[in-house]
Amino acid sequence: MEMISKSKSFGGEQRVYRHKSTVTGTDMDFAVFLPREALDGFVCPALFFLSGLTCTWENVTTKGLPQLHAAKHGMIFIAPDTSPRGEKVADNESYAIGKGAGFYINATQDPWASHYKMEDYIANELRTLVIDALPVDEDAIGITGHSMGGHGALTLAMKYPGKFHSVSAFAPIVNPAAVPWGQTVFELYLGEDQEPWKQHDACMLVLAKGWDGDILIDQGTADQFLEEQLTPWAFEAACRKAGVDLTLRMQGGYDHSYHFVSSFLADHMAWHADRLD
Amino acid sequence: MEMISKSKSFGGEQRVYRHKSTVTGTDMDFAVFLPREALDGFVCPALFFLSGLTCTWENVTTKGLPQLHAAKHGMIFIAPDTSPRGEKVADNESYAIGKGAGFYINATQDPWASHYKMEDYIANELRTLVIDALPVDEDAIGITGHSMGGHGALTLAMKYPGKFHSVSAFAPIVNPAAVPWGQTVFELYLGEDQEPWKQHDACMLVLAKGWDGDILIDQGTADQFLEEQLTPWAFEAACRKAGVDLTLRMQGGYDHSYHFVSSFLADHMAWHADRLD
Repeated sequence: MEMISKSKSFGGEQRVYRHKSTVTGTDMDFAVFLPREALDGFVCPALFFLSGLTCTWENVTTKGLPQLHAAKHGMIFIAPDTSPRGEKVADNESYAIGKGAGFYINATQDPWASHYKMEDYIANELRTLVIDALPVDEDAIGITGHSMGGHGALTLAMKYPGKFHSVSAFAPIVNPAAVPWGQTVFELYLGEDQEPWKQHDACMLVLAKGWDGDILIDQGTADQFLEEQLTPWAFEAACRKAGVDLTLRMQGGYDHSYHFVSSFLADHMAWHADRLD
Repeated sequence: MEMISKSKSFGGEQRVYRHKSTVTGTDMDFAVFLPREALDGFVCPALFFLSGLTCTWENVTTKGLPQLHAAKHGMIFIAPDTSPRGEKVADNESYAIGKGAGFYINATQDPWASHYKMEDYIANELRTLVIDALPVDEDAIGITGHSMGGHGALTLAMKYPGKFHSVSAFAPIVNPAAVPWGQTVFELYLGEDQEPWKQHDACMLVLAKGWDGDILIDQGTADQFLEEQLTPWAFEAACRKAGVDLTLRMQGGYDHSYHFVSSFLADHMAWHADRLD
C-alpha cells in the first residue's frame, strides 16, 4: 500500500493510504489516524468507522475530529471508503445506489457483482491489511458507523464473530430489508428473492446470531430520515427479544448531519476504548 | 439577517446567517455557534475566527470542531467569510488575490476599492451586528485566525483598541509588507506607495501601537510557508522590542493544514475563555 498523504495531528499522524484491492478489483483509499503510541511502535486498539451514503473516507476524518479522541485513548482510527471507485465500476444517478452506496455487502447480481464486494473488503481484506501493516491489536478491534455505515457496523460485527470486539452506531439503518434505501439496493445488488436479504439485516441478524456484548446506538430525534429509513425501534424490539443489551439514546433535537455525529463521537470512542482495553 | 441553516451541536446550535453588508455592498455569509447558555438567553463571551486564503466561514466550522470547545466554555464562536463574493466583485486567477483573499484591509485602489472592505466589515459592521442580534457580551470579545486570518486577528486587535479583548493566532502572516503574499496584495489593494502598508503589518503595528495584554501564537515547524511567508521570528523580535508579552510556540512536525489548527484549537479557546472571563 502507498501513503498518499500524511499530516501531524494531536501528537500522532493522520494518513491516507491507497492499495490495490483484489476483492473489489479496484484501487481503494482509506484514512488512518495513528496516535503517538502507535508511532512509537506499541500495538494499539483500533476502531473502524464506516461512513454513510455519498461519503468517502474523508467525511468523518475531516468533520468528526476523531483524532482528538483517538489521541486521548491511544487508539488507531480507520475510515474506509463506502464503495469501489473508478470508470469501470457500475454506477447509478441516484445518490443511494452505486458509487458511495456499497452498503457493506457482497453484490451477487450484474452489473454490481464484479466490484461491489464491500463486505468482504472490510471484514477480510482491509482488516487483515491493517493488522499486517500497522500496529493494530487484532484482539481489540471495534467497529462503528453512521447511517448506511451504522448498518455496516452492526451487520459485519454479527456476521463475523471474533473479528470485531465492540460495536456501536450513529443513526444506523437497522432494518434495510423493510425500508426504501435498503430494499432498492438489495433488489439490485442481491436480486428480487428476499431470502438472502435476511443475512444483511441487523434486526434479523440479532435474532438469528445475537451479539456477545452490549451495543450503543445514538439517534437524533430531528433526523429527517428517522421514520422512513432508520426506525431504531425495530432494532430495539429485536434486541429485547434476542436478549442483547442495547443502549439506544434518542438525542433530542439532533439531525442526521455530522453535527450530530461529532457531538457524540467522544462518547462512542470512550465506550469502545473501555471495551477494547 | 436571514438564517440559512441550523443544526443542533454539542447541546447548542451551529447556524449560518446571510445579511446585506452596506460596507462591502454585497451579501455576506457567516457561521456562528451558540452554546446552550446563549440559547437560554444568557450573554456570553465570543470569539471571532478569521480564516486563511481560499477559505470561507465553512473551513474552521467544519474541520476545527470549535463547537466542542465553545460548548465547554459557554462561548459564542463566529466564523466570517474571507472576502466579498458575487459576480460584480473583482477577482484574479491567483488563489492569493481577490475572492478568498480579502486580507482584512480596506482596499483603496480600483477595481478592489468598491467591495474589498473586510477591515471595516469585521471590526465595525459584523461586530456590531452580532452584538445587536445575538447574546454577545460586547466587553468580552476575542479574535483569532489562521494564516491570512492570523494577520487579520493581530492587526484588527491592535488597530481597534477596546473592540477585541484577547488575541491569538495560528501560523499567522505577521509581516505582510515584507513577504510575497502580503506585498502582492498590498500593491494591488493599497497601491505602490508603501507608506500606508505600515498600518496593516502586525510587526509595525506592535511597535507603533503595542497591545495591552498577552498574545498566543502557535506555528508548525513543518509548515511549507514558514520561511517565505510567515516568519514568526519577525513578530517575536518586534514584541520583544515593544515590551509585549508574546508566547510563540513552535510546534514540532506540524504543517499548515487544519490538522494543525484543530490540534491546538482547544488550547486557544481555553486561553481566550480565561482572558474574557
